[in-house]
Amino acid sequence: MAGDHNPSARNLEIEMARVRQANRQFYQAMESLDMDEMESVWLDSASCRCIHPGGPMLIGWDDIRESWRAIFQTTNTLQITLHEVTVHIEGSVAWVTCFEHLVTTTEKHSASAVLCASNLFVMVDAEWRLVLHHTSPVGALDDAESNLVQ
Amino acid sequence: MAGDHNPSARNLEIEMARVRQANRQFYQAMESLDMDEMESVWLDSASCRCIHPGGPMLIGWDDIRESWRAIFQTTNTLQITLHEVTVHIEGSVAWVTCFEHLVTTTEKHSASAVLCASNLFVMVDAEWRLVLHHTSPVGALDDAESNLVQ
Repeated sequence: MAGDHNPSARNLEIEMARVRQANRQFYQAMESLDMDEMESVWLDSASCRCIHPGGPMLIGWDDIRESWRAIFQTTNTLQITLHEVTVHIEGSVAWVTCFEHLVTTTEKHSASAVLCASNLFVMVDAEWRLVLHHTSPVGALDDAESNLVQ
Repeated sequence: MAGDHNPSARNLEIEMARVRQANRQFYQAMESLDMDEMESVWLDSASCRCIHPGGPMLIGWDDIRESWRAIFQTTNTLQITLHEVTVHIEGSVAWVTCFEHLVTTTEKHSASAVLCASNLFVMVDAEWRLVLHHTSPVGALDDAESNLVQ
């Protein structure tokens, strides 16, 4: 049957879809402001790294969890649209790069931003778990700044 | 003999050292402003990604090479000190996170900055080649700003 001649390519396709799903789950956890969902995405490890836009490098899941908790506590709504999502897999490691278009509101203001993101997943117990999330604002932030409402 | 009981741990140690060396070579290429050295570090692939501090996401080695060429052409000197370099390896993929302390001079000014960096390497033909470089300024840039000389 078609497709059966190259099982490794077929497996790669399946894993690519699973990585995309893990990546979506990460952003859904952000949009839901849900710590349980966020916890299920990350590997619980001291080796994890997280760099929020303009922020320092957070080291280990404990500090990363606290950063998300703080973000979720001060955020009313968070909407994210992803663009140019690309996935690469080498063995048990996958990395996703994409643009995040964020619209966020807090008690006092709303803002939008365009960010570059690099997300690194490792396969642990047959699940793709996030171990590195690095985001940074894209140079041109005209929209974000003009939408800022104090 | 000591060490021979766990060859995989020993191999990992060797590969960790090789990744550190590849990472050093990348920063030496930057400091040398040498395109040949820079070219030897990266994988020549459309799958490569590079995000310079505050910049957009560059896709593919052709565009990435041009960005380094432009940086090197407008830079007189570039000194980089790395801090908190950590290396992780999973199979044929390795990732390095670190802080870059940069001091750079051009014709018209000098500046310093502290950046977070994520560098991803893949093993190709027994060599660790760079496929993703993501940098972003750390929140506190007091030193960098105070050192800016127009």
